[in-house]
Amino acid sequence: MSTLPQLLGPTGLGAGSLRLSPRTAAGRSGKVPAGRPKTVPTQPLKPIPGLYHHAHVEPAPDLVDDIDRRTKEWAFGITMYERGFEKEYDAFVFGYYTCLCYPDYASREHIMAAAKMLAAENAVDDIYCEDLGGSPVGLGYRLCLAQAAFDPLHCTDEYQSAWEARLRQDGPRHGYRSAFEHLNTIASPAQLDRERHDMIRLHLGYLCEAAWEETQTLPTVDEYLTMRQFNNFRPCLTIVDAVAGYELPHDIHDSHHMQRVIALASNATTIVNDLYSYTKEMNGQRPHLNLPYVIELNEHLSREDAYAKAVDIHNQLMHAFEEEGVRAALAYPHPAVSRFITGLSAWVAGDHHWHATNHGRYQLPAWL
Amino acid sequence: MSTLPQLLGPTGLGAGSLRLSPRTAAGRSGKVPAGRPKTVPTQPLKPIPGLYHHAHVEPAPDLVDDIDRRTKEWAFGITMYERGFEKEYDAFVFGYYTCLCYPDYASREHIMAAAKMLAAENAVDDIYCEDLGGSPVGLGYRLCLAQAAFDPLHCTDEYQSAWEARLRQDGPRHGYRSAFEHLNTIASPAQLDRERHDMIRLHLGYLCEAAWEETQTLPTVDEYLTMRQFNNFRPCLTIVDAVAGYELPHDIHDSHHMQRVIALASNATTIVNDLYSYTKEMNGQRPHLNLPYVIELNEHLSREDAYAKAVDIHNQLMHAFEEEGVRAALAYPHPAVSRFITGLSAWVAGDHHWHATNHGRYQLPAWL
Repeated sequence: MSTLPQLLGPTGLGAGSLRLSPRTAAGRSGKVPAGRPKTVPTQPLKPIPGLYHHAHVEPAPDLVDDIDRRTKEWAFGITMYERGFEKEYDAFVFGYYTCLCYPDYASREHIMAAAKMLAAENAVDDIYCEDLGGSPVGLGYRLCLAQAAFDPLHCTDEYQSAWEARLRQDGPRHGYRSAFEHLNTIASPAQLDRERHDMIRLHLGYLCEAAWEETQTLPTVDEYLTMRQFNNFRPCLTIVDAVAGYELPHDIHDSHHMQRVIALASNATTIVNDLYSYTKEMNGQRPHLNLPYVIELNEHLSREDAYAKAVDIHNQLMHAFEEEGVRAALAYPHPAVSRFITGLSAWVAGDHHWHATNHGRYQLPAWL
Repeated sequence: MSTLPQLLGPTGLGAGSLRLSPRTAAGRSGKVPAGRPKTVPTQPLKPIPGLYHHAHVEPAPDLVDDIDRRTKEWAFGITMYERGFEKEYDAFVFGYYTCLCYPDYASREHIMAAAKMLAAENAVDDIYCEDLGGSPVGLGYRLCLAQAAFDPLHCTDEYQSAWEARLRQDGPRHGYRSAFEHLNTIASPAQLDRERHDMIRLHLGYLCEAAWEETQTLPTVDEYLTMRQFNNFRPCLTIVDAVAGYELPHDIHDSHHMQRVIALASNATTIVNDLYSYTKEMNGQRPHLNLPYVIELNEHLSREDAYAKAVDIHNQLMHAFEEEGVRAALAYPHPAVSRFITGLSAWVAGDHHWHATNHGRYQLPAWL
């Protein structure tokens, strides 16, 4: 292991530039302050034992309420979700989730761009791929047409008009288009290009997972981890600079070193999702692969040992992210670099807190 | 229509910077000079009547021979193609194709990078998707794992090693990895990132087409054109600057204007493929959509009228590319911009010539 100091996390490098609200007691002990707004969840924090993580930054309740209300009005106003899915939508507490993950934000309009992207990504996942009517069959064309909502067709007038009209008739595609229009108001062309790239990675990852489901194929552990590097939270992490109102210089962003830092942070936080959603996925109606289960099947371990091995993989990735992040900050002495890495770390911490308090969706395995 | 001058094509803007070899008589009349190397095809040029196109730049025969020989040695040496597919491989005349399309190249090592990428893209298309054993079933995971050959996994040591070993056991994935390693020696991190992005677009396009085949779905014309903007020659066009040894500045590349120029050129040249491969695809063993056929089915036109409409769409896209290209060159007075647009135009002209002389693969419809 490297001896580099682990300075990261929301209290690490560059944190001086963050707008931090003090954490409430609820974030740590589960006690709910009187008069807490309903859009801030009230569940106690229950982290997975042994999971390496950092404390989150608790967002201001009035901010959460505002972002939550506006995101929901937008999502149902453009019929990205149909009214029948209101309960499922509410279970995500998008306003709280977004505010948890972007403590460094330039304005409420900036954080709204992130909230809309997050909600739109969930709509496509729910409605095209998963619980709310999704299917692996025909997914390739639905996701290609969805990607084109922000990587638009360039065609002759006749078909350009037909394409535009059709785009707005489909809830998830309309959601993508509208969310990206908002992102366009706060991000540079380079930042938009990065987000398009990470979104198409996400879609290819969905298609990999769908192909395994459709063909009833068990991937090896490294193949599963490859899929999960594509089907990944990375599109949320990529925009931490845009949401905060600055830009990671493109030559640093594109460097092998920074690409590795971004991938490691994104992979660690994505495996958190596998670990917290394990119980839900193992009890679901449709079979659903996740890292502990793929390890169990490939390596003939007990459920408990396979789960513990997945926790260990996560922890190794977190340490690798933090070590590589320190190296990157030292290699590129540009203030945007340490701020960006802090932004990644804050996203990871916020996402962990959301998973560890969202007991409506997630329950720890019985043996923990 | 705009009144902007149409200055582009290999004789247009920036052509002064190209290394041009004189066209041989064969390129125009079909007569074969004595002693012509065997890797330069001997078929006469048969363009589609009414198809707007530009004359190509004929590459030097010794260059073609050298690139062709080295590309084939590489492709079979790493078992990207198995020996049984030698005849199918030869039909592509990769050396001639590559040299036709990149008249502006910095060195033979630069053009070899393009040749390997082109051959590797064809291997994945042939072996994963199409004629040489491909299938739409399970394609999502094959293409996701293939994309990871140049968008590599970042994982713990145990699974990183397993992934690396598995990668080199698969011909097409090994081809991608090896071709990208060559590209890495001539391209900047930003240029590599662009190529990764365009390659994943290609893969999503393949998956869209495969989903339609698997579900026996007829797309509308605008949906088909959207798929074809992804399943597209764009990865070949994107690297014209890298092959020529300069870099289109990233802020110009990422601008909406330049993205549109690249998309229009790529779409026009991709539709050329639909038009020349129409006869082959209509007579193939597996059903295969192409633009004239999708127009015929959707708009209830005769085959002849549908084909003529597809030619017209191509011509409109070519004109739009050339008009937008002139505008971009005026908007961004950087020498790399006009050179890049000329590079796109030269690629389009070379690709057209390849299609219009490769009668082993392509025959015009009987009524033309």
